[in-house]
Amino acid sequence: MPADQLVQNLESALSMVPLIDAHSHIDPLSPVSKSLDDILGYHYYTELAHSAGMPQTLLAKDADPRDRVREIVRFMDRYDNTAQYGWFLDIARAFLGFEDGRKLVPADADRLFDVAAKTFAQPDWEAQVFAKSRLEKVFLTNEFDDPLKGFDTAKYVPCLRTDALVFHLDRPDTRRRLEAISGVHVRDGATLRMALARVFVHFTRNGAKACAISLPPNFHPAKFDDEHFYEQMQFHGFQDLAPGVFWLIAEYCRDFKLPFDLMIGVNRRVYDKGVYQGQDLFDQRTSLVQYKDLFNAFPDVTFPVSVLTSAQNQELVAHSWIFPNVLPNGHWWYSNTPPYIRKDLTERLTAVPKTKLIGYYSDAYKLEFVKPKYGMYRRILAHVLADEYVRPGALSETDAVALGTRLLRDNVKEVFKV
Amino acid sequence: MPADQLVQNLESALSMVPLIDAHSHIDPLSPVSKSLDDILGYHYYTELAHSAGMPQTLLAKDADPRDRVREIVRFMDRYDNTAQYGWFLDIARAFLGFEDGRKLVPADADRLFDVAAKTFAQPDWEAQVFAKSRLEKVFLTNEFDDPLKGFDTAKYVPCLRTDALVFHLDRPDTRRRLEAISGVHVRDGATLRMALARVFVHFTRNGAKACAISLPPNFHPAKFDDEHFYEQMQFHGFQDLAPGVFWLIAEYCRDFKLPFDLMIGVNRRVYDKGVYQGQDLFDQRTSLVQYKDLFNAFPDVTFPVSVLTSAQNQELVAHSWIFPNVLPNGHWWYSNTPPYIRKDLTERLTAVPKTKLIGYYSDAYKLEFVKPKYGMYRRILAHVLADEYVRPGALSETDAVALGTRLLRDNVKEVFKV
Amino acid sequence: MPADQLVQNLESALSMVPLIDAHSHIDPLSPVSKSLDDILGYHYYTELAHSAGMPQTLLAKDADPRDRVREIVRFMDRYDNTAQYGWFLDIARAFLGFEDGRKLVPADADRLFDVAAKTFAQPDWEAQVFAKSRLEKVFLTNEFDDPLKGFDTAKYVPCLRTDALVFHLDRPDTRRRLEAISGVHVRDGATLRMALARVFVHFTRNGAKACAISLPPNFHPAKFDDEHFYEQMQFHGFQDLAPGVFWLIAEYCRDFKLPFDLMIGVNRRVYDKGVYQGQDLFDQRTSLVQYKDLFNAFPDVTFPVSVLTSAQNQELVAHSWIFPNVLPNGHWWYSNTPPYIRKDLTERLTAVPKTKLIGYYSDAYKLEFVKPKYGMYRRILAHVLADEYVRPGALSETDAVALGTRLLRDNVKEVFKV
Repeated sequence: MPADQLVQNLESALSMVPLIDAHSHIDPLSPVSKSLDDILGYHYYTELAHSAGMPQTLLAKDADPRDRVREIVRFMDRYDNTAQYGWFLDIARAFLGFEDGRKLVPADADRLFDVAAKTFAQPDWEAQVFAKSRLEKVFLTNEFDDPLKGFDTAKYVPCLRTDALVFHLDRPDTRRRLEAISGVHVRDGATLRMALARVFVHFTRNGAKACAISLPPNFHPAKFDDEHFYEQMQFHGFQDLAPGVFWLIAEYCRDFKLPFDLMIGVNRRVYDKGVYQGQDLFDQRTSLVQYKDLFNAFPDVTFPVSVLTSAQNQELVAHSWIFPNVLPNGHWWYSNTPPYIRKDLTERLTAVPKTKLIGYYSDAYKLEFVKPKYGMYRRILAHVLADEYVRPGALSETDAVALGTRLLRDNVKEVFKV
Repeated sequence: MPADQLVQNLESALSMVPLIDAHSHIDPLSPVSKSLDDILGYHYYTELAHSAGMPQTLLAKDADPRDRVREIVRFMDRYDNTAQYGWFLDIARAFLGFEDGRKLVPADADRLFDVAAKTFAQPDWEAQVFAKSRLEKVFLTNEFDDPLKGFDTAKYVPCLRTDALVFHLDRPDTRRRLEAISGVHVRDGATLRMALARVFVHFTRNGAKACAISLPPNFHPAKFDDEHFYEQMQFHGFQDLAPGVFWLIAEYCRDFKLPFDLMIGVNRRVYDKGVYQGQDLFDQRTSLVQYKDLFNAFPDVTFPVSVLTSAQNQELVAHSWIFPNVLPNGHWWYSNTPPYIRKDLTERLTAVPKTKLIGYYSDAYKLEFVKPKYGMYRRILAHVLADEYVRPGALSETDAVALGTRLLRDNVKEVFKV
Repeated sequence: MPADQLVQNLESALSMVPLIDAHSHIDPLSPVSKSLDDILGYHYYTELAHSAGMPQTLLAKDADPRDRVREIVRFMDRYDNTAQYGWFLDIARAFLGFEDGRKLVPADADRLFDVAAKTFAQPDWEAQVFAKSRLEKVFLTNEFDDPLKGFDTAKYVPCLRTDALVFHLDRPDTRRRLEAISGVHVRDGATLRMALARVFVHFTRNGAKACAISLPPNFHPAKFDDEHFYEQMQFHGFQDLAPGVFWLIAEYCRDFKLPFDLMIGVNRRVYDKGVYQGQDLFDQRTSLVQYKDLFNAFPDVTFPVSVLTSAQNQELVAHSWIFPNVLPNGHWWYSNTPPYIRKDLTERLTAVPKTKLIGYYSDAYKLEFVKPKYGMYRRILAHVLADEYVRPGALSETDAVALGTRLLRDNVKEVFKV
């Protein structure tokens, strides 16, 4: 069988697997795009276009959406080499009738804009996207005070995002919001625990299946005692509590039996004039050793870990290889392009128990991105399965598909109990 | 010639090369397994099984070996994607008559246990393993007070392991052991030098061909003066002497003409409830620049260097490229899986003089692991030689085999003078 | 079409692209080699030969060039596995009539030495090398007080190298040289600015198209105020001014509209007894986050960035992906061997706008090295284009060649305005 045929067979079989997408930023009240502007306003396009020279003028809130789309498309011939461009082409082909093999040119912007408007306006568009993407469920990213109302939590799975609680408790607004959702006025460790408990009750009663947080490269979790909480809250404006609040949240993940997704490595606002959501970067000098105490202290909490840099993947592989509660999770952001996915996936597959590998998540803001992103992942997965298992004779094609299915779906079901 | 045929030819030719294994933990008084429990009790299996969910109950010393083997095999379908599982399958096939192409299932545990008991009980089993592995010599890891008696040092080559001397001299037990083997009561720099000299005499008279040590990521060697040794020994309980004791050992490596194997990067006991030997990890934030003074001060000492993380491989390549006394050595532990070996080997081969590349060592605790581990390495080596040299027309097949042989055998002979 | 045919087609098409080499150490008054000693005296050969055991005796200035060449060639069978050896073989074949397929042996040294002497003595040798390499222009590395006279700046493009100004202003000799070229006696911030302005005028009037600097791993640029300059200059012997002088140079790059090449990561004189230019290494623990303030403060300065370690490539990719003024530049020194180029190039191509990718530069000291180094790069580029774009159906062969041409030539023209 020719090499490509094998990869095609595997990819084709894997594309039949119904998806449970374990991390996204989908708004369940507005899950699909309403216009092409929702697609091309995604930071992957605005930041690449801007990086390639596009002024930010048309990115203003009040700019005309059609003009903005024209402008972003006009710059595409400067970044049509990228994986992110590939996602857009997939969307245009799969959802907007853009012909296979045709080159995208600036003149296409208007036609695609109009087709998108019509297509996305169909009353069953959301259902169509679910069907065309073979999407079964998608995890959300919910602020701690999200009412979690008005959507089907069997399809849109709530996930408690805790960045604000951990890193912005020094902002009066965060504390007001916490008091509003929990009914507790936080002034010391005990009241903070109570407030957090109420948040966890609210989320788990509404079908939450995970807790999540993104963390800077220099973060060290630490257990704080009540005196320290009291001191900082009473006399230091709730400053510098992040390590200890994080620790309390881990305790509630244990008590409420929620996996705790750690997304490690992001430095916020490095490029301060960058486009919206295109300002964050990282520092490769970070280590999972910073989480040593956490992983030891919470053997009963499952930690699906995403690392922002591919260089840290070996630390993630090694930790997942010996710690039962550490699991590699997806391919995040700056590591979500083919060369990094290929490398990191291969490293994980050959050294971490297969039952612990959460293959992928979309991180999408609009449902239309689930299909192209998973499509990219499945192509790479098919290649890796072919090269590392089928061709060397370690697995049959059928068994390789089963292994791929485990990464795509089975482990998500088992780890998050969905 | 089809691509695969070339790789097969190379692999087949390389598999004829008699091996000199430059680093292992073989006990020369009990070099082969006595039961399947000796094979599956290897930390690579206990830690993967535990990481995949196996309770540690049956890992207790007094647990029934057959039950333990059953349990570890029962969990294999959770980690049968790993390279480590592949080694076991190779052992089962090569030594225990397990049929090619058959899938391993829990029910096989008992049959394999019985076959192993019978096979390993053969009086010439050790010789059989040597022959089937084409193994000529294997280096040991000997504690500094090992009597080095009762085995053939031409086959089992002693290697002075110095971790305890460097890192645990503050333990009274280490000092008692040092006094017992050297006849010297250490109380200052001078007596420490005398004691170490006696240890080196003991080892070199008994055929030792290398000195070795494993080092944490933050280690900096340093030359201590006698006043500092005196001070620390007399008033601070032999604390914090590691950099200076290490330096003295390097001096004796120079005087006794022993290569000094540095195994860089391990943090001990990170996962404190991990299985036996499955508790250590690393911190990617380390640099060979920490060894700058050492490499400059000892131009006559050969330093075969192993790095625990693949990210540090480029530092190793660059240091080996300009320092005559720095050599890349094997693929260690968390970097001993196919993706890391492939990457690190390719990087080394294209930039470091071939006469300096010590290709591989088994790190094995039982001789049965030499064959599958070297088998994995040779497959990768054959691929790399094919892709980087034969297919681009840089080397003929014959010359590629010669290059591979150099990595597998010639350099070990020349560097360690065996 | 067979896989290799596609790669050959691409490589062959790319080899027709006229080169503009954006970074070299060519001496425009002596751009080509005069003897084989000029070729093999290149640090890549002396350091590999020395690293493989060659004594440094024949590297002395007054040693006989023919003897030196013999010695370096004699050691080649210890490092003929390296990419660097491959460059020499290319030179021998392309310029010295060495037959394809023949093995190089020590006895060839004399014959090649004689052929080289004769070949390089041809009056039009420089023009021949330009033609055979399809070289159009090559950037120089000029000390700040270079008179920039006696050569054609359309062919040899001046580039202001600022290492001495930034890192050695505490040396009286540097300040004397600065006074001599600028006519300004530096004693505070104002006079330093004036002196630097004169240097920039001198360079831009003489056709300079870039400013450049190499930086240690721990470097942080910083803006110094005039009081700080005054203090350090008057009372501390011009010590510790590097971050601030660097910042001033960035200001003049902005004012004089010169791209500022940053070559990040080198530690000088790590191996203090190393061969000439073979003493420098690096520390992988560095981050582009150190340049955050710089990249934000100078949106109008283009920073083509080279990183010394492949591990830092992801930081470079991510910064180039969001910062309009950060561009990945070539494959530098210890990262200029095939495995690193392949990895780093693939990572860049799939995530950074193609108009920002400066594919390669030779870093050569003699023009004869442009051809083999670019040859190596084009082979890898052809493979990457085939694997990532043509075979998956994303680009036609013609479009892939256009993409490659952009990296090889178009972007150099646009970024440096040559």
